[in-house]
Amino acid sequence: MLVLGVDPGSRVTGYGLVEKKGGEMTCVHFGQIRLQPKSPFHARIHKIFQDIAAIMDQWCPEEMAIEDVFYAKNIKTALKLGHARGAALIAATECRVPIFEYTPLEIKKSVVGYGRAAKDQVRAMVQVILKLKTQPDLDASDALATAICHLNWSRFEELGSFKR
Amino acid sequence: MLVLGVDPGSRVTGYGLVEKKGGEMTCVHFGQIRLQPKSPFHARIHKIFQDIAAIMDQWCPEEMAIEDVFYAKNIKTALKLGHARGAALIAATECRVPIFEYTPLEIKKSVVGYGRAAKDQVRAMVQVILKLKTQPDLDASDALATAICHLNWSRFEELGSFKR
Repeated sequence: MLVLGVDPGSRVTGYGLVEKKGGEMTCVHFGQIRLQPKSPFHARIHKIFQDIAAIMDQWCPEEMAIEDVFYAKNIKTALKLGHARGAALIAATECRVPIFEYTPLEIKKSVVGYGRAAKDQVRAMVQVILKLKTQPDLDASDALATAICHLNWSRFEELGSFKR
Repeated sequence: MLVLGVDPGSRVTGYGLVEKKGGEMTCVHFGQIRLQPKSPFHARIHKIFQDIAAIMDQWCPEEMAIEDVFYAKNIKTALKLGHARGAALIAATECRVPIFEYTPLEIKKSVVGYGRAAKDQVRAMVQVILKLKTQPDLDASDALATAICHLNWSRFEELGSFKR
């Protein structure tokens, strides 16, 4: 099972591909879609769509996991984040990749065991779980955490003992 | 010059095609993309993308005009609106249709001559300007107003006396 985790943002969108084989998770690839702050906003949003679709084409993940967002600093930030997140959802739907959404609490609990963990704590645990030699950027580690969270939930679903 | 005006929303997205020939504007087509409230959110956002792209394919507008949004009732509404608006921007960029953005004030001023006009005042003026026999829904009339606003600005641009 190969899962693409996405952490959308209108400046930087992180992504990470995590594979689970025989109970063990490995990181296949991770990175960031960096958006030029000087390019028009619609071009940045389109780049997220285009790049996520290209990642889907190249790596063929079976499912996509993305954070469910309810909170933003202010209305302006919420509007921008909505555009960026929408781009990722449209790319996945275009590529017919099923989408799974998790709250920040679920992701942190699943990876660190503690719902209020800080971003660098999440990164440290992601590095341990996936045995990463290099430290990913925070956007990429959030994306990898989302993928790990989904693979943890899927484990329960496979056993039939838990239905989301 | 054929312009597609779009009024995005996560429940209803209005659209309207306005053509300008020899100084006169006519309505070519207008309508609404109605989204099933029960269908998953990502499917609704994808439908906006898909339907706007289909409208572009069918009618081949030369430019798209869309409201520039800065305000929403709350964070949740802003996030949803961001997703919907992003879908329209991605569709236009995919179809290589240039995008022009106008503030609600610019649109209302351009159509009604008064920046704080109510939605039904905008609709009444849209009906007069385009000589519509039927009254469009408010979402469609907002979309038509955005297209009219863009065609009004373009007039100045053609004369070279005004640059946005």
